[in-house]
Amino acid sequence: MAEVKLHGVWNSPFSCRVIWALKLKGIPYDYIEEDLPNKKSPELLKYNPVHKKIPVLVQGGRPICESMIIVEYIEETWPHKYPFLPTDPYERAMARFWIKYFEEKGPAIWMVSQTTGDEQVKFKKESLEILRTIDDHAGTLGKKKFFGGDNIGMLDIALGCIAHWTEVIEDVAGVKLFEAHAFPYLHAWTQNFKEVPAIKENLPDRDKMLILFKRGREKLLASQ
Amino acid sequence: MAEVKLHGVWNSPFSCRVIWALKLKGIPYDYIEEDLPNKKSPELLKYNPVHKKIPVLVQGGRPICESMIIVEYIEETWPHKYPFLPTDPYERAMARFWIKYFEEKGPAIWMVSQTTGDEQVKFKKESLEILRTIDDHAGTLGKKKFFGGDNIGMLDIALGCIAHWTEVIEDVAGVKLFEAHAFPYLHAWTQNFKEVPAIKENLPDRDKMLILFKRGREKLLASQ
Repeated sequence: MAEVKLHGVWNSPFSCRVIWALKLKGIPYDYIEEDLPNKKSPELLKYNPVHKKIPVLVQGGRPICESMIIVEYIEETWPHKYPFLPTDPYERAMARFWIKYFEEKGPAIWMVSQTTGDEQVKFKKESLEILRTIDDHAGTLGKKKFFGGDNIGMLDIALGCIAHWTEVIEDVAGVKLFEAHAFPYLHAWTQNFKEVPAIKENLPDRDKMLILFKRGREKLLASQ
Repeated sequence: MAEVKLHGVWNSPFSCRVIWALKLKGIPYDYIEEDLPNKKSPELLKYNPVHKKIPVLVQGGRPICESMIIVEYIEETWPHKYPFLPTDPYERAMARFWIKYFEEKGPAIWMVSQTTGDEQVKFKKESLEILRTIDDHAGTLGKKKFFGGDNIGMLDIALGCIAHWTEVIEDVAGVKLFEAHAFPYLHAWTQNFKEVPAIKENLPDRDKMLILFKRGREKLLASQ
């Protein structure tokens, strides 16, 4: 039994952030799939009483919640192999600034698949602004492959949702968001990100996600 | 001229977080008051093009934005004097968890003064839940004076808004939120927090805030 346990949900980009971090660092762990739509497990409720959400990482019986806080915990617990943050305080602050930006704004992209009509138009507009802002930032990377430099860093892990989920959201919502010609730098980053084995081998199945999210959208439309 | 500059607004709890951090660490700085309701300065727009908000800390010409990211930058740049974070990764993750909780939920408390009727009732309910959750957490402190232990830490700095602004919000909104008997641990913390000279000497004037925020509320009521 591994010392580290992860409670997650297979299609969650937040679970995947933690999986990617553990894989990049080479930390063995046991994975517990939570069945959120049906019943939150007693462990999940015990470990995350404030939010009652996945992912939760448990090490030595102590739970850590919130995906990016878990990723930073992993970084600080196993700092030497595959560092996720630079050492310079200013560069660390810049990574944290963009992580916070995406944590606050990013949910608008998901909401495009959860809304219709004017509301969806509003979330589409917000999503395009977010992608524009991050693409502009990606344009400052120069020859670096990742926001973290030559290797994946904390901001890359945070933005991983864009690389794999946005396409599925577009298909489900019938709305185009992430056009390659409009966001060239972020698109190039997406390709680099998904080529890294720890990422490529740990992305949820696109077709399974599509079926699940389309079923959710059908329910939403039927309820209107 | 100090190497460090802070762009802020006198009544902002977010500016105060940075001021408290600089004072606790004993870092000299120049303060630039921004006149946000009238005109954002060209420096502010240059330094924080994404959010166009205060506070912004500038060191050696390089800007850092977002109050708690600035506080963590201050911690990492001047780590030895008055440390704001413990060294243990788990305890650091716990501090970050609660900071994120309050960053996400806390604005509901301010919104009580910015709304009326059913909307205000909703924000009051949310605010009481937030205070309840943080009071429960404060109840686990035992004999420690602060969330940071014997000294003020990053979470104390984040929660500083509760210690000084909530009372003014209550007066302006005509709504009681932070009753001592309902939230005894958080109240005790408030007293401890406001006794520390770096905090006590750097709290915006209560009466001036009251006048300013009451004027804002009168405008809100007149526009309805």
